[in-house]
Amino acid sequence: MPASPILSAALSRIAADVDAMFDAMLPVPDDARARLIEAMRYAAIGGGKRLRPLLLTATAELHGVDFSTALRAGVAIEAIHVYSLIHDDLPCMDDDDMRHGKPTLHKAFDEATAVLAGDALHAFAFEVIADPDLFPDPFTRAELVLALGNAAGMNGMAGGQMMDIVAEGECFDLRTVTRLQQLKTGALLGAAVEMGAILGRLPPEGRTHLRGYARDIGLAFQIADDLLDHEGDETAAGKALRKDEAAGKQTFVSLLGPERARQQATMLVDQAIAHLAHHGQEADLLRALARYVVERDR
Amino acid sequence: MPASPILSAALSRIAADVDAMFDAMLPVPDDARARLIEAMRYAAIGGGKRLRPLLLTATAELHGVDFSTALRAGVAIEAIHVYSLIHDDLPCMDDDDMRHGKPTLHKAFDEATAVLAGDALHAFAFEVIADPDLFPDPFTRAELVLALGNAAGMNGMAGGQMMDIVAEGECFDLRTVTRLQQLKTGALLGAAVEMGAILGRLPPEGRTHLRGYARDIGLAFQIADDLLDHEGDETAAGKALRKDEAAGKQTFVSLLGPERARQQATMLVDQAIAHLAHHGQEADLLRALARYVVERDR
Repeated sequence: MPASPILSAALSRIAADVDAMFDAMLPVPDDARARLIEAMRYAAIGGGKRLRPLLLTATAELHGVDFSTALRAGVAIEAIHVYSLIHDDLPCMDDDDMRHGKPTLHKAFDEATAVLAGDALHAFAFEVIADPDLFPDPFTRAELVLALGNAAGMNGMAGGQMMDIVAEGECFDLRTVTRLQQLKTGALLGAAVEMGAILGRLPPEGRTHLRGYARDIGLAFQIADDLLDHEGDETAAGKALRKDEAAGKQTFVSLLGPERARQQATMLVDQAIAHLAHHGQEADLLRALARYVVERDR
Repeated sequence: MPASPILSAALSRIAADVDAMFDAMLPVPDDARARLIEAMRYAAIGGGKRLRPLLLTATAELHGVDFSTALRAGVAIEAIHVYSLIHDDLPCMDDDDMRHGKPTLHKAFDEATAVLAGDALHAFAFEVIADPDLFPDPFTRAELVLALGNAAGMNGMAGGQMMDIVAEGECFDLRTVTRLQQLKTGALLGAAVEMGAILGRLPPEGRTHLRGYARDIGLAFQIADDLLDHEGDETAAGKALRKDEAAGKQTFVSLLGPERARQQATMLVDQAIAHLAHHGQEADLLRALARYVVERDR
């Protein structure tokens, strides 16, 4: 299903803006680091849906933050996402050859460069959000770093990734798969919304509904991913599919069946949108985004 | 040559304290993330000279910061150092089997776990220094993150690491090798001193002599490393030696010869100590540390 007009415009805009900002912030130096920065640019520019920057900027704008400030934080969280994809694609991890319709970084460059480019993008994210020229308020900077660090680390994405590796030999139940996915993808999607709220100076106790929204779309996103992996087209996806099935890993689709998984995803989207009930039409982009995570075809 | 009594005591103390703090901050959870945290603990606890935490705490104490506060930041910078060693040791990087006298992480666990444990320690460092319970002042937190992020990223350690990989096929001159090492090891040693100064609320313009000190001992440290690599004993080092020579990489020793390299290192140490001239005996630990970086046998 095509994205709504409001969302289509926002997706195009964020894709162009994130690319432009990575381009501006990662100039290729005139020394032996050139290869590193070229590798970072290869992975960071021109691919991906930029869901996290869009979630972040949409949440920030909902709270009166100007787009250009929010975009900087969006680039930081996208750098974390891109680094995680680079490392996930490595031969010792998922061993993927294609990502966003082009060779993965270790295929286009080499493994050592891929490890390092991932590491450098990881640090880059924190360099961006700790930069006083970009975010003048020190309290905001410190809060952004904590939210992003927690989402990326052992109690977030990296922890979920480890569970995912361990999953191959285990027979995880629905509860454990849910927890795994909440860490592996949910934590960073949650951080996107959290960071938008931080920029909008929303106090932590005022973020409950946004956290609920993020938690629900995070799970819906993963169920949709499992459905796409089960039923999707590799060319449209730009990457190899059905690897979890081949590896005997439990997914929402294998545990629930495609029909119940689809119902569950739809239910989660309705629930996510319900969290936004006290917002007016200024939250329409977040609502459209919630629908999009289950209706997308890649 | 044995370390001076003041330094021996400080080295023993920091080793025990860093171990204890990693132990306390990395409890093994009761879920599938256990393997990740066990891997982080394997790499982080019980090895290494803890030079960076010692530099950080010594600089902080010189400026009236209490040791326990400084130690937390010391653990953060050591986490960055440990993550970099884990990734450097990977088969696609230096392919090392031994580190600190025990199997490297990817040998003791597996490559995927090593990549992830490095990533998780990287994030952990930022989680620690952005934690308001550990560092109440938001300005301090934000400054710590910026110093550490810059030192770890493409304009610091990761950039130097890339230059080091590129070096294998090139014939670098002394200037380029110096720049490479200033990034690869110097940046993080510099950040240790910088972070100590940040905790001591020293304004940036008051840090010039400390930066000079750090730059000089950073280079001296690397020259000593090259000399140890050239002349040292693998058992004492706890790792494989003479790999740079075998790979045809330029080092300070290959470019200057052992004798001139040794003179250069001694000169840099004298210069580092001269930067501390306006401090009294309260800087004796930093002076002893400067001598130690060239006199150590591992």
